[in-house]
Amino acid sequence: MRIANLDDRLVLLDGNRAIDVAKASDGRFDADPQRVYERWAEFRSWAASAPDLPGELFDPAALGSPAPRPAQVFAIGLNYAEHAREAGFETPDTAPPVFTKFPACITGPYGEVVLPAGGHTDWEVELVAVIGHRAERVPAARAWSHVAGLAVGQDLSERASQLAGPAPQFSLAKSFPRFGPVGPWLVTPDEFDDPDDLELSCSVNGEVVQSGRTSRLLFGVPAILEHLSAVVPLLPGDVVFTGTPPGVGMGSTPPRYLAAGDELVSSVTGIGELRHTFVAAGEG
Amino acid sequence: MRIANLDDRLVLLDGNRAIDVAKASDGRFDADPQRVYERWAEFRSWAASAPDLPGELFDPAALGSPAPRPAQVFAIGLNYAEHAREAGFETPDTAPPVFTKFPACITGPYGEVVLPAGGHTDWEVELVAVIGHRAERVPAARAWSHVAGLAVGQDLSERASQLAGPAPQFSLAKSFPRFGPVGPWLVTPDEFDDPDDLELSCSVNGEVVQSGRTSRLLFGVPAILEHLSAVVPLLPGDVVFTGTPPGVGMGSTPPRYLAAGDELVSSVTGIGELRHTFVAAGEG
Repeated sequence: MRIANLDDRLVLLDGNRAIDVAKASDGRFDADPQRVYERWAEFRSWAASAPDLPGELFDPAALGSPAPRPAQVFAIGLNYAEHAREAGFETPDTAPPVFTKFPACITGPYGEVVLPAGGHTDWEVELVAVIGHRAERVPAARAWSHVAGLAVGQDLSERASQLAGPAPQFSLAKSFPRFGPVGPWLVTPDEFDDPDDLELSCSVNGEVVQSGRTSRLLFGVPAILEHLSAVVPLLPGDVVFTGTPPGVGMGSTPPRYLAAGDELVSSVTGIGELRHTFVAAGEG
Repeated sequence: MRIANLDDRLVLLDGNRAIDVAKASDGRFDADPQRVYERWAEFRSWAASAPDLPGELFDPAALGSPAPRPAQVFAIGLNYAEHAREAGFETPDTAPPVFTKFPACITGPYGEVVLPAGGHTDWEVELVAVIGHRAERVPAARAWSHVAGLAVGQDLSERASQLAGPAPQFSLAKSFPRFGPVGPWLVTPDEFDDPDDLELSCSVNGEVVQSGRTSRLLFGVPAILEHLSAVVPLLPGDVVFTGTPPGVGMGSTPPRYLAAGDELVSSVTGIGELRHTFVAAGEG
């Protein structure tokens, strides 16, 4: 099953058609995509047993994040060994670094992103998981059952302010406006042959800069959810960025960052792709 | 003006009496304390012009956080020079470290907190600001007008997991259940002679361990809001922990941490005090 946020309304996707959930359910489910996760089991059951519903062709430009206002956004750092190395850190052994992207930066799969003036904006394609059932002290073996679905994410990062000061600014420097694209829709885990081995890639102006597989994650989705939920209850609709494979601009020699006019495509095979264009500050 | 969260309902406080806002306003304002910040100017105006409303004596044990479900929680690290030193960091010059306490850990002013097993739980009394008007690229000179009010906060921190791994875990290790007490109520900035010079203190079993003044903040409330809002829009009801003065347990020789049975009192003069007792894991 795929769901999406179309003009701030929850839709079920059927091929290239969208079914408005609030209308098709006669108001049983809220139009607000963020609210569906509070009743995820009930929604899944309704969607599975609903008769063939008529969908409408839709304009992809109207897609937003399938979880537009998560109560909590978790992000995992240094979660692929080669990326930890290119970032100049040791490889985490018992626990990966956890930070946040402040929720106001969560945005949809397409559009323009303003480059912060004087900064160095870098790309980080990631697999994103959205929580469907509250998770508290969940063992890895049961973690997938708490996931509503998977999406592509971009953990856009402004390196100049990230690396300034006495401690790295993982959270703030990764939270400029629209620095948290998620989408283009949410795909339930049952749609994948192996949700623990998905292929990611990222290209700038058509040149592939990152490629990886989630089977190479040091802490895969189950281990991440076990680690996080041992401390913090994960709430329905929470968003988890799982970490980026090697190939970020900061790790190139010389470092390479996004410039005005660049087009960034971020994809996960079996889900889809995000597509963003960058504009200079003052032009956004 | 003081407002509070009494049994998950918004109240105005008048001395030791509480006025239920939803009832007194005939439903004009929602009972949910988190929602009042979306209409802060209208609420302040109503509260100022309301006739003398009858209040009721209340049970302080029923107080919760005046902002129980903030969309975003910002926390500032190393914001007093002597605390940066005791924590072993350089003093930030141009920008303080910013992290989050994941919102599920926000809790009220009194009660029990479970000590994570195998951890070293430390105290950090802080002044907390709650946002009343959306703040986007706000200069310091206008920042106070975006603050709904001030409260006492405790940035409880589990040092063993905070300091493990290749990068310090500011956010996760500070987000165990009930590790983010805020309260006991919210006091509007106009109630203080000088909201930039408030006295903080923290005691363990009656012994004062931290004392400080917010005039010693390296980045005061206006500078913090300018710094944060230059990157992330601050939303009504967002919570900002401003940093802790020296005297944390980690900085003692030898280090000293909270133990089962300890009582922690955290206070800001002119606001009030938080009072928490600690229990061992398995007893909470």
